[in-house]
Amino acid sequence: MPKKNLLVTTDLIDPAILKRLSSFANVSASSVLSRKSLEALLPSVDAMMIFSWPKFLTSEVLARMPRLRFIQSILAGVNHIPFQILDRRVVVASNAGAYSGPVAEYAWGLLLAAAKRIVEHHSSLREGRARLVRHGDSAEGIYMLEGKTLGILGYGGIGAMVGRMSKPFRMRVLALTRKRAASLGVTLLSGKRGLERILSESDAIIIALPLTKSTTRIIDENALSRMKKNAVLVNIARGELVDENALYNHLKSHPGIRYATDVWWYRENRESLETIHNFASLPNFIGTPHVSGPSGLATGVPIKIAVDNTLRFLKSKTPQNVVDPSDYTG
Amino acid sequence: MPKKNLLVTTDLIDPAILKRLSSFANVSASSVLSRKSLEALLPSVDAMMIFSWPKFLTSEVLARMPRLRFIQSILAGVNHIPFQILDRRVVVASNAGAYSGPVAEYAWGLLLAAAKRIVEHHSSLREGRARLVRHGDSAEGIYMLEGKTLGILGYGGIGAMVGRMSKPFRMRVLALTRKRAASLGVTLLSGKRGLERILSESDAIIIALPLTKSTTRIIDENALSRMKKNAVLVNIARGELVDENALYNHLKSHPGIRYATDVWWYRENRESLETIHNFASLPNFIGTPHVSGPSGLATGVPIKIAVDNTLRFLKSKTPQNVVDPSDYTG
Repeated sequence: MPKKNLLVTTDLIDPAILKRLSSFANVSASSVLSRKSLEALLPSVDAMMIFSWPKFLTSEVLARMPRLRFIQSILAGVNHIPFQILDRRVVVASNAGAYSGPVAEYAWGLLLAAAKRIVEHHSSLREGRARLVRHGDSAEGIYMLEGKTLGILGYGGIGAMVGRMSKPFRMRVLALTRKRAASLGVTLLSGKRGLERILSESDAIIIALPLTKSTTRIIDENALSRMKKNAVLVNIARGELVDENALYNHLKSHPGIRYATDVWWYRENRESLETIHNFASLPNFIGTPHVSGPSGLATGVPIKIAVDNTLRFLKSKTPQNVVDPSDYTG
Repeated sequence: MPKKNLLVTTDLIDPAILKRLSSFANVSASSVLSRKSLEALLPSVDAMMIFSWPKFLTSEVLARMPRLRFIQSILAGVNHIPFQILDRRVVVASNAGAYSGPVAEYAWGLLLAAAKRIVEHHSSLREGRARLVRHGDSAEGIYMLEGKTLGILGYGGIGAMVGRMSKPFRMRVLALTRKRAASLGVTLLSGKRGLERILSESDAIIIALPLTKSTTRIIDENALSRMKKNAVLVNIARGELVDENALYNHLKSHPGIRYATDVWWYRENRESLETIHNFASLPNFIGTPHVSGPSGLATGVPIKIAVDNTLRFLKSKTPQNVVDPSDYTG
């Protein structure tokens, strides 16, 4: 069987790994090709490994890639992929689960920082407003997680890991999932009613959903209104899962609710720290500039998983994490 | 057997609980007694329940309490008790372990906030200095806990709970303790060499020691110099366990090391947010105004444990958590 042709459009994969891949494919890296060489190569490309979607891959260019059958994303989510211009024969694999460990750890960091009001207390200290909590004062808003209910929206790799990390906190766990698999100690729910139940019963909620056409702005005004008045909402998935205006209004009018996020809304199809409202001025908002993914990438695990999955395709095995394009189009 | 006389010097115990105690003792609350009635009562007092040390209990007053045999602290630590003026026949019980759940949860909040640099990133966002971490950037200073080494200084109720909570993070755990009890999956060490080993091998260290004469400023310049250059040090015990000057100098000269604390140094024998140095200005410092204890108190558990232990004394059983005064005097 002749080797397939693999085009790699990111510099994240180091030479030793490219060499490993080249035992199974003719590997080209777009960054070291001239425009002319790249153009000449495109008609023969069978597979690609991408990080963010390469700008040169317009619908015109894709039309000149009749052999393309496989795209492996190194990012966990594939909402950056323009499925509407992809040939239906192209199989797209996400990198779901590849960042589970680091992102779940980060989610717990945001959850605890918000639940214990650590950021808020630290800010008041920096600004000279803090006072020692006198013994006997109720430490308002600092609640125990033990015995409380944790809602996990999206029970994939990250969601399941977040649930696993809750074990020593002895929380009741409710998870929203389309899968029907059993999970020890976790109540799996689905659909609109499942979501509503999780929103209304949870003391802490972690958003770990993929961004698809049906999950975009799933946390809207209606959803927010169902939450408990002292609930903590953590987003480590995608900013666009939450309605920006509705969130701002809700945080303003419900000071007990806290939102902690590492992910941001899109401006011109690109994640941006520019927001419509001044979220950072709210005491019940914690924001960090999407650091959980890169810290995962630094472990080398996501690249390894993406490479292993690409090898499945190259060896004519069935790749994992194949995406259903209808979740993203139409 | 005649009932013993119990004096309660705090308003933290609600009437229903005082009523329960009064089945086993003649209970008086100092706050509702006139100075004269209090003076008249003192010679007959057998036991006391206290929160912070009552100002009226000077050595002169104690000299007029010949029957006093038991003091139950509602605070976990007893470093606020003036053992040098107490008769040797007075048994003092700490409330060690009573705050384990909430304080251990809080310790994990500080640990994750520091390890993931959540507070620092949030501050940079508030101040308009944040930028989105570009894919492929190393997320500097945000490290995975999984596979790392956790050092726990003091393996009592809080320390053991902190260790238990590390399980899903799959960390190697080293603990400093005077006890020789085995603990599954935890390497127990003791003495100066044990401390030095924990300091030099740990990626994250949580201080959960009682403040005694031998632990005061146990984290001094020498101890700090043994720590890894990107280690996280968390203090949820007592500020005085750490040398203030040495810490400031070390944080200034070692920006990779992070210190997160909920507890503060003493000024005139009282914990105070006043510090010699401007810690709050350091990016590698997180401080909160001793909120972990009160949030534990709000659960009602510490009062319940202190009452149960006091009942042991009142029923002539051996109380738990009896303190060795020589740890605090001489």
